[in-house]
Amino acid sequence: MFEKVEAAYRRIKNYVNHTPTMTSSTLDQLLDCKCFFKCENFQKIGAFKFRGAMNTLLQLSQEERRKGVITHSSGNHAQALALAAKVLGVHAVIVMPENAPKVKMAATKGYGAQIVVCGSKPSDREEAVKPLIAKHGYTFVHPSDDLRIIHGAGTAAYELITDVGSLDYIFVPVGGGGLLSGTAIATKGLLPNCKVIAVEPANADDAYRTFKTGKLQPSINPQTIADGLRTQLGPNTFQIVMKLVDDIITVTEEQIVDAMQFLWERMKLVVEPSGAVSLAGVLSKKVSVAGKKVGIVISGGNVDLTSFFTTLRTKVAAVTPNSKTEKERE
Amino acid sequence: MFEKVEAAYRRIKNYVNHTPTMTSSTLDQLLDCKCFFKCENFQKIGAFKFRGAMNTLLQLSQEERRKGVITHSSGNHAQALALAAKVLGVHAVIVMPENAPKVKMAATKGYGAQIVVCGSKPSDREEAVKPLIAKHGYTFVHPSDDLRIIHGAGTAAYELITDVGSLDYIFVPVGGGGLLSGTAIATKGLLPNCKVIAVEPANADDAYRTFKTGKLQPSINPQTIADGLRTQLGPNTFQIVMKLVDDIITVTEEQIVDAMQFLWERMKLVVEPSGAVSLAGVLSKKVSVAGKKVGIVISGGNVDLTSFFTTLRTKVAAVTPNSKTEKERE
Repeated sequence: MFEKVEAAYRRIKNYVNHTPTMTSSTLDQLLDCKCFFKCENFQKIGAFKFRGAMNTLLQLSQEERRKGVITHSSGNHAQALALAAKVLGVHAVIVMPENAPKVKMAATKGYGAQIVVCGSKPSDREEAVKPLIAKHGYTFVHPSDDLRIIHGAGTAAYELITDVGSLDYIFVPVGGGGLLSGTAIATKGLLPNCKVIAVEPANADDAYRTFKTGKLQPSINPQTIADGLRTQLGPNTFQIVMKLVDDIITVTEEQIVDAMQFLWERMKLVVEPSGAVSLAGVLSKKVSVAGKKVGIVISGGNVDLTSFFTTLRTKVAAVTPNSKTEKERE
Repeated sequence: MFEKVEAAYRRIKNYVNHTPTMTSSTLDQLLDCKCFFKCENFQKIGAFKFRGAMNTLLQLSQEERRKGVITHSSGNHAQALALAAKVLGVHAVIVMPENAPKVKMAATKGYGAQIVVCGSKPSDREEAVKPLIAKHGYTFVHPSDDLRIIHGAGTAAYELITDVGSLDYIFVPVGGGGLLSGTAIATKGLLPNCKVIAVEPANADDAYRTFKTGKLQPSINPQTIADGLRTQLGPNTFQIVMKLVDDIITVTEEQIVDAMQFLWERMKLVVEPSGAVSLAGVLSKKVSVAGKKVGIVISGGNVDLTSFFTTLRTKVAAVTPNSKTEKERE
């Protein structure tokens, strides 16, 4: 499996950002360890998802490329597939629920994809996709449970380890399990003794329950701020996770926000809640990392900042007239 | 002068972060140029100020170090001096107005400095500092108009140019002029043909007026969101700016917020308003940068995010009970 990640890296490396590794001396002092953050918030479209989308589309046949691709997503996968398709001149259709945030619809449309709006029930998405595939022959690209997506996602950890060398632990968020599976394959291939720790919101702990019981558990109405981690493992990711992952730990919603705040305030990184879950796992101290070298995968940074900047603009508008008055006084 | 920046770089390089250079293909396409962001928001204490503070303290005599240092500041210079003093085991006293944000007081205290609270009138600061110097023999460290501060600040542009090579333009914010002066010295020393463009809020345009009239103009009640740029040039920075800077342009408050929003949303960088002013200058198109290589100095990333995270915690608290109910239902 590892050679598939290496092949994915060679295939996509001229299309993706080689994202930087960041460190924090404050955090290292706090935990008495050495942490290396793989910053996929700096990846194109703001999340690791672009790696898998690119790796998948580059393996389509000419015929498949000509017909186009389709997926259903209201998150980062939608934008990733839209941009990858644009780069390769492939038609992309994204099915989005009618209640998807307008900014995400706009961003996906901005990458040139065709948006098809469906109902807000989970089953509505599948029902919207099927007739479109039947009619147009689109290739469906699953957001996580596809080996091409998994191998592409694994190139983030591949780059991290290539850049920083040996690690004792790597912490990674788990939702659908694509990033986790890819990370585990890349890590065990390069560093067989490095422990792969998945971190999941306690409020969306289906992967945790799956790992502990050995049976694929569904995600039932997950209520977590980490919107990218509400999905569940699929047949492929389930197999890989059970085989290669060392442990899955859970974190509370408060721990997720704490980690996010540390990343923003102390490290100056805009990270989305799902992306901060890996650090939340490290900070939870459920795993002893003292004296160790620790990799932390930051999966993405797509946060809706509309209300933050609206507030700021209101403040600025309140200040400007004062300033004019001052100038008139001069 | 340039050799003083080189000497500063050798002096401080083991104490400061060699901050990364970031790029944005979106921005490059938008402006048809190649932009390189020097990210001093990733510097220790979250701003370039640590460079000058370190360069100054490392040049104190043993006697001066023993007696300690003092400054008045409610901003990044306070934290920079506090941390530099802590690193070298020097006592630091920071005079802060009683209306300074509590988070900034706490951060400065967190670095081990002694805080002396004074009144909120500008003259109160000087009046608080003088008797303390008379009594304890502290060395006063000015936030910008000190050659050691200036040469230290110049090491950011020195690193940038060393990392990316030739540039046609470098855009830098101007407040007290320490960063601008240091940047101009470093840039003209390494790249005599590179144009140094200072950017200033139109609502605090004293440096602009100074540059255009050739006479040092005061900053009168500046009303700008860019709180780090409300100060004015001093005797040293005035001389350097008049001699080495190619132009000063101004930007509106709205342009500052637009630039900040681009940095946060598109580049995932937490940048403070003052730090976004340089990009606002580039985006203003007052200088034609098409086809050029452009350096952009991001001076810092210290923004008070308390209310943002308070809102987020309220949202999270509202979600958690729902989730528990769901679990009970299982």
